[in-house]
Amino acid sequence: MQHTGTTLGAGVMARLDELARHSADPDGLTRLYLTPAHDAAARQVAAWMEEAGMSVRRDAAATVIGRYEAAIPGAPTLLLGSHIDTVRDAGRYDGNLGVVVAIAAVEALHRTAERLPFAIEVLAFGDEEGVRFPVTLTGSRALAGLVGPGFLDARDADGVSLGQALTGFGCDPAGLPALARDPAATLGYLEVHIEQGPVLEDAGLPVGIVTAIAGASRLVVTVEGRAGHAGTVPMRLRRDALAAAAEMVLAVEAEANAAPDLVATVGQIEVPRGAVNVIPARTRFSLDLRSPSDAVRHAALARLRETWEAIAARRGVSVSAQGSYDELAAACAPGLTDALADGIARLGLGPLRLPSGAGHDGLALAGLCPIAMLFVRCAGGLSHSPAESVTEADVDVATRLLVDVLRHLRPDSLARSSL
Amino acid sequence: MQHTGTTLGAGVMARLDELARHSADPDGLTRLYLTPAHDAAARQVAAWMEEAGMSVRRDAAATVIGRYEAAIPGAPTLLLGSHIDTVRDAGRYDGNLGVVVAIAAVEALHRTAERLPFAIEVLAFGDEEGVRFPVTLTGSRALAGLVGPGFLDARDADGVSLGQALTGFGCDPAGLPALARDPAATLGYLEVHIEQGPVLEDAGLPVGIVTAIAGASRLVVTVEGRAGHAGTVPMRLRRDALAAAAEMVLAVEAEANAAPDLVATVGQIEVPRGAVNVIPARTRFSLDLRSPSDAVRHAALARLRETWEAIAARRGVSVSAQGSYDELAAACAPGLTDALADGIARLGLGPLRLPSGAGHDGLALAGLCPIAMLFVRCAGGLSHSPAESVTEADVDVATRLLVDVLRHLRPDSLARSSL
Repeated sequence: MQHTGTTLGAGVMARLDELARHSADPDGLTRLYLTPAHDAAARQVAAWMEEAGMSVRRDAAATVIGRYEAAIPGAPTLLLGSHIDTVRDAGRYDGNLGVVVAIAAVEALHRTAERLPFAIEVLAFGDEEGVRFPVTLTGSRALAGLVGPGFLDARDADGVSLGQALTGFGCDPAGLPALARDPAATLGYLEVHIEQGPVLEDAGLPVGIVTAIAGASRLVVTVEGRAGHAGTVPMRLRRDALAAAAEMVLAVEAEANAAPDLVATVGQIEVPRGAVNVIPARTRFSLDLRSPSDAVRHAALARLRETWEAIAARRGVSVSAQGSYDELAAACAPGLTDALADGIARLGLGPLRLPSGAGHDGLALAGLCPIAMLFVRCAGGLSHSPAESVTEADVDVATRLLVDVLRHLRPDSLARSSL
Repeated sequence: MQHTGTTLGAGVMARLDELARHSADPDGLTRLYLTPAHDAAARQVAAWMEEAGMSVRRDAAATVIGRYEAAIPGAPTLLLGSHIDTVRDAGRYDGNLGVVVAIAAVEALHRTAERLPFAIEVLAFGDEEGVRFPVTLTGSRALAGLVGPGFLDARDADGVSLGQALTGFGCDPAGLPALARDPAATLGYLEVHIEQGPVLEDAGLPVGIVTAIAGASRLVVTVEGRAGHAGTVPMRLRRDALAAAAEMVLAVEAEANAAPDLVATVGQIEVPRGAVNVIPARTRFSLDLRSPSDAVRHAALARLRETWEAIAARRGVSVSAQGSYDELAAACAPGLTDALADGIARLGLGPLRLPSGAGHDGLALAGLCPIAMLFVRCAGGLSHSPAESVTEADVDVATRLLVDVLRHLRPDSLARSSL
């Protein structure tokens, strides 16, 4: 499949439409890890990789790997790619875009038989969304040597273990540890991905350079007050758990508003067994806190805990916060992000640097090598929805930029500046 | 059953324990309108009324009525009483206390063959809690001539209509309209009831005089914002429905704190289909607003609607409030409340006047005659719970007070001051 006579963007968009047909759901796109839809998409991706002049294999984590050799043997490898699994009722760009753009970039080099001073491997990971199993990033963790014992025992909703599912998919789970790459031979990892947020759209730019993948804290906060009859307890005698929680929710918002590098979200709240005519005895709410700076995030959380305690004490209620999740941030490597910035400047576009609030395979690969991400503007910042949308023009910019950056990338300078 | 040699309070407490045995639930107290447990309790109450020298009947609404004649024929009638239905898993004092205290007061007069310048009727209503049917206060509404067409068609969860249930209970539903009393022959209605709130306990007083039964508004408020990824949407680009709702909940509390005669409660809140990592697109909360003054309540609601709109406009979200309930307040009659205050003074107790935030049969009877209520301190302000509790000493005060007030009540002054 050659796309001569048309733009790189048009070719990528056509392939993304084709890839979206591989779904467990005939009316929408659902492609979970190690399912028949995943297998079909992996085969399609492998075929495109071969067309693009790559040698293709599937590793023990079911990652599809297309390798495009360097100009000289023994050169280090630059990793490109993203994931081809999706959430349920997904859009067609999250993950898939980065895989198809990377293949198109290599294809552009292959068409003119151009070899670079480094090898390229395009990776199509299968477990980024973490929908099927209670673990995630299996493919990228394996490359970083981060698949620990017990990982294979994680089970899906039907009781199938990750190990069983890998075997059923034709992969050898025992081969996972051997997937760990040699950091010295790995130049870096560069991923193109839709932004999943509204910042580029707001700024009127097609692409942006990711500064870091944000770290995240998740908590469940429980406020305990005292129940009472809504009609008979005077305001001054109340210990209303929900009124206290409302104040805490606003404190969360104020904390995030005050810090430029922090977002905080209360996505769920409930008064268990609440009734219209009963003063809430208990209120529970969730907190999701993210920042590219772990220091900023941890300081904000410490201040919030103090603020919540003060609110609770003033109101005669109690508060407890249970952390369920704490993921450290992964900074993008200056060598790679500067290379992206140089390419953006050569295209005559304004540079915009922004954090990634969502997690990506780069989180795991940061343990192996320098990482970087290029975000592509998506309509309304919307993702994880059939309404997810990007323009052909923006995808064309991203693909041309990637080709140009690959051509300009000097392994020596990259390794130096990444240290 | 005579309680000579012991206090009036001890006798009342013993009967309340006995009455609590009539329950649909062997392990707790559940006595819904027109059920076998209601019938058993009604028979027990009727027996005590007869012992107390009253002539007893059951009217078409299944209200048990015990009549104690006046010193002279043709004298007007003072109504006493409360209700003998309960909520599910109820306490034994809510409602039942007022019936048993009224019987004990008449019994005290009967024991010394004392006749008053007015007749007394003790009423044991059967439908105050409104648990079984989607209507309530059937017995008291009937006396006030407030049972409209369609009332009998209300159905319980099993599809049984109120009309069918009355017939099955041995009552003639067609007789409801004829229950309407002549206002000229009705002196007033006086009910003893547990406070169901913490005000008397907080003030260290056994009883208090109700100023009015509060009117109530109930609303469901819906805030519509915009969903978004918790990690990728910067704070300044969010339209968070829950953060807006939190501000509105605090505005509700502030409004009620500012008005001495208002209580406001947000008892329920939810983010429909909310997730820990999604900015809330929608939040719904309930509002229950009560005041002895309808003007205060309506003005507060109007101000709240304005405040909510301002919060929504500032945050780029929308808000709508749907009223589900609006019940006017019923003021207690000065003639009766002054008579209670005089009695409390004669007992050497401090007078405390307080509104009733909960609804009672007096709400309906206020359409017929002057009403008043005497509240009895209950532990922790707790009601509608097996932990509902009063002391024998407080019940003794309430019963002695009622006997004393009855003895001092002058029909002429009451009629005059009630105008």
